[in-house]
Amino acid sequence: MLYEQLATDLSAAIEQGALRAGDRLPSVRRLADDRGVSIATVLAAYLQLENAGLIEVRPKSGHYVRTRQSDHLAEPRVPRRRNTAFRPSVSTAVARLLEANRDPSIVPLGSAYVGPEDLPIRALNRLAAGIAREMTTLGVAYDPPPGLPTLRRQLARRSVTWGLALHEDEFVTTIGATEAIHLCLRAVARSGDAIAVESPTYFGVLQAIEGLGMRAVEVPSHPRSGLDLDALEDVLRGCGVRAVVAATNASNPLGAVMSDEAKQRLVRMIERHDVPLIEDDVYGDLVWSGSRPRPAKVFDRGGRVLLCGSVSKTLAPGYRVGWVVPGRYQEVIERLKFSQTLGNPTLTQMAVAEFLASGGYDKHLRRLRRTLGGRVEQFRDIIATEFPEGTRVSAPLGGFVLWVELPVGVDSLELQGRALERGIAIAPGPIFSARNRFHNFVRLSCGSLTPRTVSALSQVAEMACRLAGRTSGARSVA
Amino acid sequence: MLYEQLATDLSAAIEQGALRAGDRLPSVRRLADDRGVSIATVLAAYLQLENAGLIEVRPKSGHYVRTRQSDHLAEPRVPRRRNTAFRPSVSTAVARLLEANRDPSIVPLGSAYVGPEDLPIRALNRLAAGIAREMTTLGVAYDPPPGLPTLRRQLARRSVTWGLALHEDEFVTTIGATEAIHLCLRAVARSGDAIAVESPTYFGVLQAIEGLGMRAVEVPSHPRSGLDLDALEDVLRGCGVRAVVAATNASNPLGAVMSDEAKQRLVRMIERHDVPLIEDDVYGDLVWSGSRPRPAKVFDRGGRVLLCGSVSKTLAPGYRVGWVVPGRYQEVIERLKFSQTLGNPTLTQMAVAEFLASGGYDKHLRRLRRTLGGRVEQFRDIIATEFPEGTRVSAPLGGFVLWVELPVGVDSLELQGRALERGIAIAPGPIFSARNRFHNFVRLSCGSLTPRTVSALSQVAEMACRLAGRTSGARSVA
Repeated sequence: MLYEQLATDLSAAIEQGALRAGDRLPSVRRLADDRGVSIATVLAAYLQLENAGLIEVRPKSGHYVRTRQSDHLAEPRVPRRRNTAFRPSVSTAVARLLEANRDPSIVPLGSAYVGPEDLPIRALNRLAAGIAREMTTLGVAYDPPPGLPTLRRQLARRSVTWGLALHEDEFVTTIGATEAIHLCLRAVARSGDAIAVESPTYFGVLQAIEGLGMRAVEVPSHPRSGLDLDALEDVLRGCGVRAVVAATNASNPLGAVMSDEAKQRLVRMIERHDVPLIEDDVYGDLVWSGSRPRPAKVFDRGGRVLLCGSVSKTLAPGYRVGWVVPGRYQEVIERLKFSQTLGNPTLTQMAVAEFLASGGYDKHLRRLRRTLGGRVEQFRDIIATEFPEGTRVSAPLGGFVLWVELPVGVDSLELQGRALERGIAIAPGPIFSARNRFHNFVRLSCGSLTPRTVSALSQVAEMACRLAGRTSGARSVA
Repeated sequence: MLYEQLATDLSAAIEQGALRAGDRLPSVRRLADDRGVSIATVLAAYLQLENAGLIEVRPKSGHYVRTRQSDHLAEPRVPRRRNTAFRPSVSTAVARLLEANRDPSIVPLGSAYVGPEDLPIRALNRLAAGIAREMTTLGVAYDPPPGLPTLRRQLARRSVTWGLALHEDEFVTTIGATEAIHLCLRAVARSGDAIAVESPTYFGVLQAIEGLGMRAVEVPSHPRSGLDLDALEDVLRGCGVRAVVAATNASNPLGAVMSDEAKQRLVRMIERHDVPLIEDDVYGDLVWSGSRPRPAKVFDRGGRVLLCGSVSKTLAPGYRVGWVVPGRYQEVIERLKFSQTLGNPTLTQMAVAEFLASGGYDKHLRRLRRTLGGRVEQFRDIIATEFPEGTRVSAPLGGFVLWVELPVGVDSLELQGRALERGIAIAPGPIFSARNRFHNFVRLSCGSLTPRTVSALSQVAEMACRLAGRTSGARSVA
């Protein structure tokens, strides 16, 4: 659509600083003339930017780039290095979070998934319905590893947009990226082995490591550039680490994106130490500025990178369709997949394959990226205004979660408990660490923006202020 | 239906010996008078018995109980005891079987699933289609353990037919029974631990044990009565076994059903030794004579029995809907399930829940049991006539697989290779053993009966005769 292109151009101009906070945008008529488009097109583009929180209308004056409350927010601090392997034990706290998620009356600020209003779930379900209605033998046969050929073909086709050109036989489909990462850990390490992980890292990775009796060595991760490679080099030299797990694009909870140079250095490093890299790329399609970043896998020469992905963040969490590109571990991954779950359900895989084949995915991604980018900014604005003085927040480059550092002394588990009493779920910091760090951190999900979530966020802010013994105004401390 | 009841009564009379091979059945008119039903009803019942291979029509004479070629077939021999723990390594041979299964042109005598013609897959898919079409948010949210409440409610309701009256909160849904058994093994044992298994046992259990770095101790299993409990007692006393895995109802590959007395003794035994029992009950609904046998779980007093089941053998293998009733291991199973696959897909669970709620399941099971019972007899007949002299075959009490002992010296891996060249898959004996036993055994699936499968069976028979250097006529050696 013309207006979408225009909106993309304008938001890029704002992001790159060509248009700054307070700047007036061209009048609708003038921009229409300049670009040779209709007035309706410009209005649609401006409306979209307004919805994304990038611009605002001043009555009788025109459109202006918004001054963001969050412009002076500080980023959370990077944890210190400590090269010791710990057995994670995050399960109890995670169980509490899951328990809350089961209750639909709870506001899910703690869960990393996008709400139904922003996903093409109707279209996907319609495809699933059509497939189920028409196929009389669907679901009868098992679909053993590597998984449904039509889905693998579509994934291979999409891999071009990741900067790879994979063959369908290089994929193994899995029950979400959760099973993919779990299989990778089992394929490359054993009980007792040490695994290098980011700090902070997604708690699912820590839970998998815990469940498999492995240990985790935490490597500091920077809120924007990701894994600290000097620290990793140290760890690889010293600790007998068996594998590295890293989310290279829009990591969870930080939203960091590693540069191409960093990715290349990372791959050369694991090659030199002959240690596999389990690369979690579930948020890769949701990096909202610039083009879709490539995974580190593009620099892989020896098949040591195991690339994991899914459609859980972009299409349908509950479909449980994920995959792994296991490189040199293809055979062992296929065997482990068979012994662990035998195969994926056919129906959900087919629906996703048809959706990918239909060509609507790229358009959906463009819209979703814009929506989430704007929404994260709106959440950051609220945090800047309402969270206690001294609060620091990540400025993610993609995805839809925020990593919030509250003033020292605020206990996020306490905050989680109080929020839950008011029907609000948040993810407390310590579950993102094997060493029980991040006591004064929380992860907040911007997956859904409704009056209910905004009100919940304000309530959390209020509780945090009370726990901190401070007034609101996070932005004032930069 | 009236005719189905009549057919059931008559087949019971044949099974119990009230009507014997060669006996003439009452004339259609007389039976209609005796039972107060229409002639059409009697004809329908007779047709069904004919299709099931139980009776035959002799022109101008009437209906007769068939003389079965398989009446004099000997059962396979029970393996000797040997109480040593072995690390299974069945994966390569299993991979070969899977590879073959992927190709739809291969005749699947090696795979334990029922063909589409005998499953209510249209009805199930229609339900799935309706659900997908109507629900605009379906598949958006994750469904974390213990899994979909509506499905667990239906399973709890069904548990009454198993002789249990479980609460929905006692279930955890899984990706088929495969994931259930895998989770159970992880919950109760660690890498290096010894697990007592049946001999022969389903290769999936051995593959899970292999993949988890555990060891297997084989306990002989009898073709009709199942696990040798004296041998198990020995093993439990001597080998430091950490868990027992057993299929108590229509085991795979034997089709054995343990008696209630044996099940009770088994549970008392594992209680005394304080060792958990992982009970595989996937074939429990497919025991075709008498009422649905109860699982050993009914005798469980301390929560040490982990009951695993699925709808993969009775409704839809490719839906991947299974469950576990983990007893005292509920919490750890939920955590492991979360870290392994996060949750089940919602859509397939909902469709199965609706199917179970609709009430058609019991009727479907009655028909399926009759169909499979008759089909297994037809396969046994063909084996009796065409397989080499000296062949022995199981006489299963349920399920749809046959365990065939070929004359000593016939290499089933060789037979598998030759059959594959002709486009036929069979499951070779050694994959059912951790100790590489059963070289002259094969498992044949009777899941589908078509001219193609019958012809394939004859070809396998011919190849087996050639490998054995013997003529056909298995039945002549009892």
